[in-house]
Amino acid sequence: MPKETVDVLIIGSGAAGLSAGIYAARYNLKALIIGEEFGGATTTAWTVENYPGYISIDGFDLMMKMKEQAQALGVEVRDGKVTELRKEGDCFVGVTDKGEIGATTIILATGSARRKLNIPNEKELNGKGIHYCTTCDSPLYKGKTIGIVGGGDASVKGANLAAQFAKKIYLITRRADDLRGEPANLETMKKFGATIEIVFDTQVKALNGKDRLESITLTKPLNGLDTLVLDGLFVEIGAEPSNTLAKQVGVELDTMGYVEVDPLMRTNVTGMYVAGDVTNETGHFKQDIVSASQGSIAATSAYEHITTGAPACHWHAVPATKEHLSSH
Amino acid sequence: MPKETVDVLIIGSGAAGLSAGIYAARYNLKALIIGEEFGGATTTAWTVENYPGYISIDGFDLMMKMKEQAQALGVEVRDGKVTELRKEGDCFVGVTDKGEIGATTIILATGSARRKLNIPNEKELNGKGIHYCTTCDSPLYKGKTIGIVGGGDASVKGANLAAQFAKKIYLITRRADDLRGEPANLETMKKFGATIEIVFDTQVKALNGKDRLESITLTKPLNGLDTLVLDGLFVEIGAEPSNTLAKQVGVELDTMGYVEVDPLMRTNVTGMYVAGDVTNETGHFKQDIVSASQGSIAATSAYEHITTGAPACHWHAVPATKEHLSSH
Repeated sequence: MPKETVDVLIIGSGAAGLSAGIYAARYNLKALIIGEEFGGATTTAWTVENYPGYISIDGFDLMMKMKEQAQALGVEVRDGKVTELRKEGDCFVGVTDKGEIGATTIILATGSARRKLNIPNEKELNGKGIHYCTTCDSPLYKGKTIGIVGGGDASVKGANLAAQFAKKIYLITRRADDLRGEPANLETMKKFGATIEIVFDTQVKALNGKDRLESITLTKPLNGLDTLVLDGLFVEIGAEPSNTLAKQVGVELDTMGYVEVDPLMRTNVTGMYVAGDVTNETGHFKQDIVSASQGSIAATSAYEHITTGAPACHWHAVPATKEHLSSH
Repeated sequence: MPKETVDVLIIGSGAAGLSAGIYAARYNLKALIIGEEFGGATTTAWTVENYPGYISIDGFDLMMKMKEQAQALGVEVRDGKVTELRKEGDCFVGVTDKGEIGATTIILATGSARRKLNIPNEKELNGKGIHYCTTCDSPLYKGKTIGIVGGGDASVKGANLAAQFAKKIYLITRRADDLRGEPANLETMKKFGATIEIVFDTQVKALNGKDRLESITLTKPLNGLDTLVLDGLFVEIGAEPSNTLAKQVGVELDTMGYVEVDPLMRTNVTGMYVAGDVTNETGHFKQDIVSASQGSIAATSAYEHITTGAPACHWHAVPATKEHLSSH
């Protein structure tokens, strides 16, 4: 029997997980939020200007506000990692390094992880010149020369931010002749003029340097040279859904690995709900406001399930019945 | 030709419409928000404690923050009423008392309207003892005796708030022996003890009074009397989707009259997007956080449509082509 049991185990402490916690608490459910990286992708965002309700707020501060809100309602937000998820009957057990947690329902809000270049030396130089979050780490490169690998909106936004610090930025893209950024961000980019140089139709072939990145080799010469000397390189080429736990309990994924959900954030597995960047609900469109909404919806579905005849989980001393679980 | 034309006409200035405006502006679209009641249902909410990011905020203040955010991005938020919506080819024209507005896309965020009792004298006494928003108007009844008609969560929340002002509250419900409120709200209600008296299995048959409500007649005697003397009566029996404009352009509705949408807030009518309480996307679950999310998604779909080959609207001096509409 798990030493700890909850009504809803929320895995992930980004906007989706924290919002799910807030709503679960409003429904008087016993909820626990466990997250590996507090705040998820949002804490790595410098400034959030598109969360309705805040003209401008630091991503970390926004996540802290949600965390405090969940805590004020009695939800524990714990740093930790659920390494394994399994079903026991219609109930769930989450395995952490500090023991097992039994849960009547799960809300999976594990988000997605940054995509890598997958070339030699990348792991060795991670944090030593190679970075995956321009908004987090570009201020380290004041007066320096950096590269950004990308082509999508994240790389455009990243370049705009980095241009406030670095003296020169090469935005390296395999795209032929355009960038896929929001018009507002492309517009902003123009203001930085030659500080941001776009290198089209080019990829990074090698990362050179031993203790630290010194230069990169390109698939196509730039100004007659294959090698570009850089102080730092930022990889902004998208993300992969963090779906390991979803797979372990048989949740259906789409071809890209995102979790298939219905509009109420239910999966094909009864009692298992999903919210945020790990879902496929809104395609490419991944935003805090959407994650927070999905968290609230997932909590509502978990609540509906628990109050309308959730299974008796074996770790209940008295087996739960419909009556036992109702609120009187 | 309409004297005014926009890329996206957003009808409704609640959480859904304002959020749509914020995102439309981020996409560099020319957007106009027109709303009859600024802030929609949220401005009538006393305190919002479940919008992730704010532990507690006045509903009106939250809407003002979203409005200011949209305005800061260059979106006009106008008080007004779109009385008619029609298609011209694949484009739209919104009719207001101040003229016509041509729009390449529409985001309908008209919300829903409070349901009435539909008994004699109701209209005459509206605002003279009869109210439809406990959270707005119950402070007017300090030390008074009021009734609340309901049974769902809105009535429970309303009673809890009103109990801070009124000396006695009769919560009148046709439900047999329970209320359908959130557990947290039912818990709070208990604290008020006899101040809130629940009158089960009973309806309001008549509203008595000439210039002002004086008493109500019940379908079942209470303490031996058919007539209950009250200073005020609050009707909290749900809402109806404001779907008039949707119907005019042939948007598909569900059996309850809510607009059918897909996860990207698209309707069956090309160029027509919907967000917020007027949609059926999340069933009964209508929340600011969901509306704001849907507004952001609707704006994204409108942007995708406009940048990937929206029709040439006849009011463009130069007919729009795919090239004309692209951002270069």
